[in-house]
Amino acid sequence: MVNKQLLNPKSITVIGASNDSKKPGGNMLKNILAGGFAGNLYAVNPKEERVQGIKSFSEVMEIPQTDLAILAIPAKYCPETVKILAEEKNTKAFIIISAGFGEAGEQGKQCEQQIVSTVNSANGCLIGPNCIGVITENYKGVFTAPVPPFNPKGCDLISGSGATAVFIMEAGMALGVTFANVFSVGNAAQTGVEDILEYMDENFNAEKDPLIKLLYLETISNPQKLLKHASSLIKKGAKIAAIKAGSTAEGSRAATSHTGAIASSDMTVRALFHKAGIVYCSSREQLLSVAAIFNYKKLKGKNIAIITHAGGSAVMLADQLSKGGLKVPEISGPEAEKLKSFLYPGSSIANPIDFLATGTAEQLGIIIDYCEHKFDSIDAMVVVFGSAGLFDVENVYNVLSVKLEICNKPIFPVLPSVVNAQREIQSFLKKGHIHFPDEVVLGKALAQVYNTPEPQSQKISLPKIDIESIRKIINTATEGYLSPKQTVDLLDAAGIPRVHEIVENSKEKLLAAMEATDFPVVMKVVGPLHKSDAQGVVLNIANKGEAAETFDLLMKIDSATAVMVQPQLVGLELFVGVMKEPGFNHTILCGLGGIFIEVLNDVSAGLSPISKNEAENMVQSLRGYKLIQGARGKKGANEKIFIDIIQRLSALVQAATEIIEMDINPLIGTQRAITAVDARVRIGR
Amino acid sequence: MVNKQLLNPKSITVIGASNDSKKPGGNMLKNILAGGFAGNLYAVNPKEERVQGIKSFSEVMEIPQTDLAILAIPAKYCPETVKILAEEKNTKAFIIISAGFGEAGEQGKQCEQQIVSTVNSANGCLIGPNCIGVITENYKGVFTAPVPPFNPKGCDLISGSGATAVFIMEAGMALGVTFANVFSVGNAAQTGVEDILEYMDENFNAEKDPLIKLLYLETISNPQKLLKHASSLIKKGAKIAAIKAGSTAEGSRAATSHTGAIASSDMTVRALFHKAGIVYCSSREQLLSVAAIFNYKKLKGKNIAIITHAGGSAVMLADQLSKGGLKVPEISGPEAEKLKSFLYPGSSIANPIDFLATGTAEQLGIIIDYCEHKFDSIDAMVVVFGSAGLFDVENVYNVLSVKLEICNKPIFPVLPSVVNAQREIQSFLKKGHIHFPDEVVLGKALAQVYNTPEPQSQKISLPKIDIESIRKIINTATEGYLSPKQTVDLLDAAGIPRVHEIVENSKEKLLAAMEATDFPVVMKVVGPLHKSDAQGVVLNIANKGEAAETFDLLMKIDSATAVMVQPQLVGLELFVGVMKEPGFNHTILCGLGGIFIEVLNDVSAGLSPISKNEAENMVQSLRGYKLIQGARGKKGANEKIFIDIIQRLSALVQAATEIIEMDINPLIGTQRAITAVDARVRIGR
Repeated sequence: MVNKQLLNPKSITVIGASNDSKKPGGNMLKNILAGGFAGNLYAVNPKEERVQGIKSFSEVMEIPQTDLAILAIPAKYCPETVKILAEEKNTKAFIIISAGFGEAGEQGKQCEQQIVSTVNSANGCLIGPNCIGVITENYKGVFTAPVPPFNPKGCDLISGSGATAVFIMEAGMALGVTFANVFSVGNAAQTGVEDILEYMDENFNAEKDPLIKLLYLETISNPQKLLKHASSLIKKGAKIAAIKAGSTAEGSRAATSHTGAIASSDMTVRALFHKAGIVYCSSREQLLSVAAIFNYKKLKGKNIAIITHAGGSAVMLADQLSKGGLKVPEISGPEAEKLKSFLYPGSSIANPIDFLATGTAEQLGIIIDYCEHKFDSIDAMVVVFGSAGLFDVENVYNVLSVKLEICNKPIFPVLPSVVNAQREIQSFLKKGHIHFPDEVVLGKALAQVYNTPEPQSQKISLPKIDIESIRKIINTATEGYLSPKQTVDLLDAAGIPRVHEIVENSKEKLLAAMEATDFPVVMKVVGPLHKSDAQGVVLNIANKGEAAETFDLLMKIDSATAVMVQPQLVGLELFVGVMKEPGFNHTILCGLGGIFIEVLNDVSAGLSPISKNEAENMVQSLRGYKLIQGARGKKGANEKIFIDIIQRLSALVQAATEIIEMDINPLIGTQRAITAVDARVRIGR
Repeated sequence: MVNKQLLNPKSITVIGASNDSKKPGGNMLKNILAGGFAGNLYAVNPKEERVQGIKSFSEVMEIPQTDLAILAIPAKYCPETVKILAEEKNTKAFIIISAGFGEAGEQGKQCEQQIVSTVNSANGCLIGPNCIGVITENYKGVFTAPVPPFNPKGCDLISGSGATAVFIMEAGMALGVTFANVFSVGNAAQTGVEDILEYMDENFNAEKDPLIKLLYLETISNPQKLLKHASSLIKKGAKIAAIKAGSTAEGSRAATSHTGAIASSDMTVRALFHKAGIVYCSSREQLLSVAAIFNYKKLKGKNIAIITHAGGSAVMLADQLSKGGLKVPEISGPEAEKLKSFLYPGSSIANPIDFLATGTAEQLGIIIDYCEHKFDSIDAMVVVFGSAGLFDVENVYNVLSVKLEICNKPIFPVLPSVVNAQREIQSFLKKGHIHFPDEVVLGKALAQVYNTPEPQSQKISLPKIDIESIRKIINTATEGYLSPKQTVDLLDAAGIPRVHEIVENSKEKLLAAMEATDFPVVMKVVGPLHKSDAQGVVLNIANKGEAAETFDLLMKIDSATAVMVQPQLVGLELFVGVMKEPGFNHTILCGLGGIFIEVLNDVSAGLSPISKNEAENMVQSLRGYKLIQGARGKKGANEKIFIDIIQRLSALVQAATEIIEMDINPLIGTQRAITAVDARVRIGR
């Protein structure tokens, strides 16, 4: 938990402070001093009377009351020190930069737990251990460089890795990205990235608080908290981009069904980010490009004007924008012709607007004015302007700088001449702007931002389902797969339309039960996990005679316990499924069945609860969506019913959180109905 | 055509030279002077006696004989000037930097053509017009900055855009990428990128010539020349990466068939690069990352060790490598344990090898030695090492620098601390190394390089086909679509197995011809272009009675001319096709039929002639390949026959280059046979 003693302490003590700024405790104190901390600052160092000019105490018992303690001493001394601080010195905030805790083994983990419980008892806040520290407006509590100047309009950075936080700041500063609060949570023994977001959300001040939040996550230990507060912050005007590293690590999760095999934890993370409105990033470069885009005005549409004196960059950028789903629409008409009259002969205004190598600053200003005021079809501009080294481009960048401030449409400046225009770029950055050195890198990030939806509402209304019956089934079920009977009862209770089937383990009973059955039918073995591998599914059974023969055949399969008979439906094969990542709500998957999941892995994922709008997007983002709409002379499947089934599945797992894996595969869809043909439900406790 | 007067002139005259280095003619002369050109250097400027300290002539008639003339005068004066130079001054090489030629309209185009014919008559070389010039070992003939120092081990850069060449050099220099020859071809009126490659290939000296070639292309006017010389250079040891900008421009090509609609010119370009062994790039950043990789030892396998003191970067890189098809294999065993004993407690050697924030230069050296000598499963190393700002990392980078030289396995250095370790990075670059600021950007480029195949052999043996019959059909065919009879004859001549069919326009004849037919059959209307849209295909016709009814039904369709009867085959739907981009050999496409092409756009492309190996790769790179192998209890299709058909199609279009579009869709494949069911062939003249 974050508190005001962490963010704005009246007094700080650095324990393990040193005169040697190559030591963490030395550089930490140096940074706090250089940062001009306005409160009382003390040091603890048994060997010195003064450290870097400030009073040093030989042991922690001797210090005055202190709000925030920063510990840079070996792990083994930390628990006792924290205890003294919490109990004797009224200390409410602790930053432990020392390593050797939970990351180092069992002993370290115990030590860490001991500290957490001491801090919790004192109702305090613990950052770390094993972190680089914290930067706020009030103090620079990190032992690393660089220490970016606090800019309240800059980016808050919250990182699960200290070194990565350093590298992100370094790469950002080179582009002109500025920073506000920086939190390195280290082992996150008490306070994780989610907790910091929670505090930022609950204490949000839209006038004063930094609006851009960059996250680097290696684990998401409280996904619901992350979702709640990220969504809430974004709805209040914040913008959040995040890296979740470890997206391809081969999970150890047992995969006994399709859903298990095709879904990955990365799908769940992406679904969470999507739901929260967080822009998903995979690299420091992308995170910072998105941060730079966040820094400019909001992109409200997909139509981009590319303004340049260098054709090549414009072509590469247009390619990239188009790949990302954005547009570079043609500009024409009388206003375009008027614009052309201000430019040198040979200029092109069709978009990209190419005003030639000889183009001037005044011309750039006029082009931007036309895009801002005259070309309604344009939502944003990218200006690519470098220097061939013949003359100064400061006047061009000055025009750009003014337009950046006064235009309502966003303008993204690509300044590629990192050598020739190095001085002019620096002067442009000093005015508070950010530049993009590579047009294609910008183009990719722009699509990433544009394609991230607004956060979903927290209040999602799901279809009404029979929760009482569902709970009865689940409460009496054992761990593992539900029986066929339990499974169909569950589908019925959830209102998911299903095929009506007969299951019997004696041929006589089966044939008797089939009295009123229409042929053809499908017969399936009950028992073995992979029916089709075991050749346990027989189609096109035309009469009772064939049914009798098939029964005998199927019962011969290893571990067969019974035989199931279903009407043979014709239509489009569909699929829905559920997986459960520990700590996350259920991930709901949908797709077309058959080859689409088994060969093409064409699956959409959403995080439960799934709104109607989300379910629609899931269905429509399938590569094979055209088949649901109807293609190649074939009628598709009823999309509304499919969406309803996805929502019912979401309602079902919300009522029965014990479901850890579920497939309905296939469902057979026609324009009138979608019917579940086969389902498997696995219960975990 | 490139000649030695262009590359190594004994004398240069700059026409339009100026004292004002803000003018192109001024800066050009300045760069040549600063570059220390060893031959005779003259200027032409009517207003000055000396320009920048060298003798200036008032008109071109007065200058001595000169090998290379560089023109920086208005376009309208160029033709006469070139004429005098070519005819009176024995000038054999011309660089025209002036604009206002072909790019500016009809008049400019004529002017350009006039110059080309003058230069051709003199058997000379023309670079430009509308370019920034040329840099060789012997002179710095560009009017732009920067002028990178000539490094014979650096990259040759050949660019279709002057500004893009400048931006590529600027971005490259920041990473430590060095350059050798630079050619800006401008309008490429006489000499294009392909011609320069031709010269480099034909005069290749493996000991002396730069091995890395970077290309920026906006058009490929002679694809065969590009393919031939790029392949040849790569086989001789060169490495080539290229951007072809304009990959998404909506082509104007009429798309009246599947092939036309699904194929794009970008597919053809990618197919060409693939065949040549050129690494396909989409941005300056990617081109330079690939150039940097080229600069290190060759990646010979896919197993990468990630060595770092910063976990976060390692995780992001591992994610990216895995997405790109590379591996970060686990390292274990006794040697790994031994390595661990040299590292601080808490270090991980499992791969990523994380030797902690406190890891030392010595430890890095030991880790690299183990990866080089002890861990046979490792093919290459990426070292990610930055600085948290506490201490100097020069000793670490010194170890790295030595290992880069002596190790046989490639090592790629990611140095993320662009602020904290700025000085150390600069000193590392000064030793001739290149660094990668972002691990994920490196990871992507590494996969791009690894996944580019070796160039295909120029001698590709295609199946024997009946060329005489093919030529007879083609020679007598008119422009447009071949008739059904011509089409089947063509397939027979190419040895592509096809379904045997009956086509008749009278019911009586049709029924008579069906005497020996096995049912069920398919009946199709002949005439309308889109049979399935027009409901012109009827399946499952079980007997002659149904056939008679269906005939009447089909003949009622608008523009129906006849009805075709075919046996109804059962198997996997496949597709092959041909498209023709102007100037390129035919692009051969293959895929699964049906939804795979119409909905999923799952198509592979190769450039004819297609070797067996290429055809195999085409088939195996399909997303739906598993279905050809056989999946979900269904037998697939005979891959060998499919490959043979692709090669036969390639042989067919080689014999009949007039084919501008062709589909065989579907082919029905079983494990024993693949049979063409429907085909369309379009002839262009």
